[in-house]
Amino acid sequence: MMTKGEQSIAFEQSPFLMGSASVVGQKEGEGPLGKKFDYICEDKENMFGADSWEAAESNMQRLACRLALEKTGMHPEEIRYLFAGDLLRQGIATSMGVEGLQIPLFGLFGACSTSGEALALGAMTVAAGYAENIIAVTSSHFGSAEKEFRFPLGYASQRPLSASWTVTGSGAFLVGTQKSHVRISGVTIGKIVDYGLKDSQNMGACMAPAACDTILANLRDFGREPEEYDHIITGDLGYVGQSILFDLMRKKRKNIDSIHLDCGKLIYDQQTQDTHAGGSGCGCAAVTLSSYILPKIEKGEWKRILFIPTGALMSTVSYNEGESVPGIAHAIVLEHC
Amino acid sequence: MMTKGEQSIAFEQSPFLMGSASVVGQKEGEGPLGKKFDYICEDKENMFGADSWEAAESNMQRLACRLALEKTGMHPEEIRYLFAGDLLRQGIATSMGVEGLQIPLFGLFGACSTSGEALALGAMTVAAGYAENIIAVTSSHFGSAEKEFRFPLGYASQRPLSASWTVTGSGAFLVGTQKSHVRISGVTIGKIVDYGLKDSQNMGACMAPAACDTILANLRDFGREPEEYDHIITGDLGYVGQSILFDLMRKKRKNIDSIHLDCGKLIYDQQTQDTHAGGSGCGCAAVTLSSYILPKIEKGEWKRILFIPTGALMSTVSYNEGESVPGIAHAIVLEHC
Repeated sequence: MMTKGEQSIAFEQSPFLMGSASVVGQKEGEGPLGKKFDYICEDKENMFGADSWEAAESNMQRLACRLALEKTGMHPEEIRYLFAGDLLRQGIATSMGVEGLQIPLFGLFGACSTSGEALALGAMTVAAGYAENIIAVTSSHFGSAEKEFRFPLGYASQRPLSASWTVTGSGAFLVGTQKSHVRISGVTIGKIVDYGLKDSQNMGACMAPAACDTILANLRDFGREPEEYDHIITGDLGYVGQSILFDLMRKKRKNIDSIHLDCGKLIYDQQTQDTHAGGSGCGCAAVTLSSYILPKIEKGEWKRILFIPTGALMSTVSYNEGESVPGIAHAIVLEHC
Repeated sequence: MMTKGEQSIAFEQSPFLMGSASVVGQKEGEGPLGKKFDYICEDKENMFGADSWEAAESNMQRLACRLALEKTGMHPEEIRYLFAGDLLRQGIATSMGVEGLQIPLFGLFGACSTSGEALALGAMTVAAGYAENIIAVTSSHFGSAEKEFRFPLGYASQRPLSASWTVTGSGAFLVGTQKSHVRISGVTIGKIVDYGLKDSQNMGACMAPAACDTILANLRDFGREPEEYDHIITGDLGYVGQSILFDLMRKKRKNIDSIHLDCGKLIYDQQTQDTHAGGSGCGCAAVTLSSYILPKIEKGEWKRILFIPTGALMSTVSYNEGESVPGIAHAIVLEHC
């Protein structure tokens, strides 16, 4: 085991991303990645057979785990630990969702960066020999997130163009010691970065400084230049956050314009889907990783990717009390093998 | 590194609990452990110099970390990772509290079991060689928790005798490779255990089955009998939860009556402090561990302790939607050395 620099870990024995699954709502199914998802909700309200949005989100997490297990040919009993989280208060979608799997659980919260946190801790656990297999799972649901953070949907309040659209989706990842074509060669754990921004309707701007900080830490710790990655892929900065990230990186004399992608931009067609700045939420980066990014690494089309889910650390209470919205971002180095 | 059984990890090279600090409110300062805490808030409202309960809780976390660093003679730059959490929605006390330390952060949620989760992940990280030093910190605040979960304090609603009193407190723990007199020799990660109870005013009953499950898993995985521990110490089962735990353990032919302690019972004087079932909250187990349990292990008065913070996985939304309150508990094996 090798620890590099200040924030990163380079694994001597890389754990493998052995399988994954993505479960999404109808809007995501109609977007550019639609055909790549494993499961698209059949009912218009995205209820996944439940009678509340929170329960729907729980069902999504459970389904994503079940599908990831199924696709990898494994059973819940073979998974030693589960690393999981969501956006709701007290991580309730996770607690209710994964209960039935009966896998020892680490509950996590990193806002929309949680899929990065879960994959990092999961990979660290496998690489240390604590577990042969773990699952990392995260989710978000447009209905439960709007209810939690914003106005009742029925108010039909106008959304500014800087606002993002919470992805209804859950991605589950099986990380283990069994060889596959994707290995997690290292991780960079983010610090909280706070530029004092207070606009919860412009989360891209709130998170861009954290993404920049973690990317720079990764490049520093691993002694790499941006072009040593085929792509640097953030979680949900969207259009506004991306342009801020480019500016911040250029100030540090790093240009990532040509290799940067953002899951929040990839998941919707901004022109036709009325999603403004792009997709966001704990599910955004997770389902995009599972459906779009991993297959390209598996095939060897991409050799090395820096995947950086980004989170805006806020609650309705902190927002109402006038606090700023600091950001955090965790990076995962994914390599074809 | 050795993984034992299904849920536990026995460390080949045990990390050490190098130092800790406890920060509490006035009521805790007036309780049986009063003189043992590092810092007792001086103002009656437990505001810690802030103007909201949430900000007060953030200040407590920051202060606990600073004191733990000071007592151990270390600087924030020497701490590689921070594992932290609280009870509030989206872990906002943590995000706002530890921001200034600028230590790469893993945000956690396990309800009142979070101090166990943080210590487990922190110990795993150090034992794997990923970090020389980490800090695990958790907090709860009576004011912010009542605001989050219950009725406005001004309503003066009656509390049933099974209800617990949220501890205003934060405990921070410095875990690392440098030898001290307390080592973390192993951990047992809990599963979610749900007996279908729905009474959020009786969390002891909701959590007791999870505590029982994790204790049994620990005994099974390590091949131990209860008496091989000087004490088995749960987080915040209180009087009601303790008697249920005893019953459940007896059904499994394990008697822990004479060696069991509960932080929720230790922290207040039930007779004079009107705390009903006992103390609870993310801070309860943490400050009791720091102020009362660790000094006894350091001195060698206790040789081996099983420490099990217990959590009730609920949110106001899940409660209002009629969901049950499942429990979770994570166990840490602490040994004198």
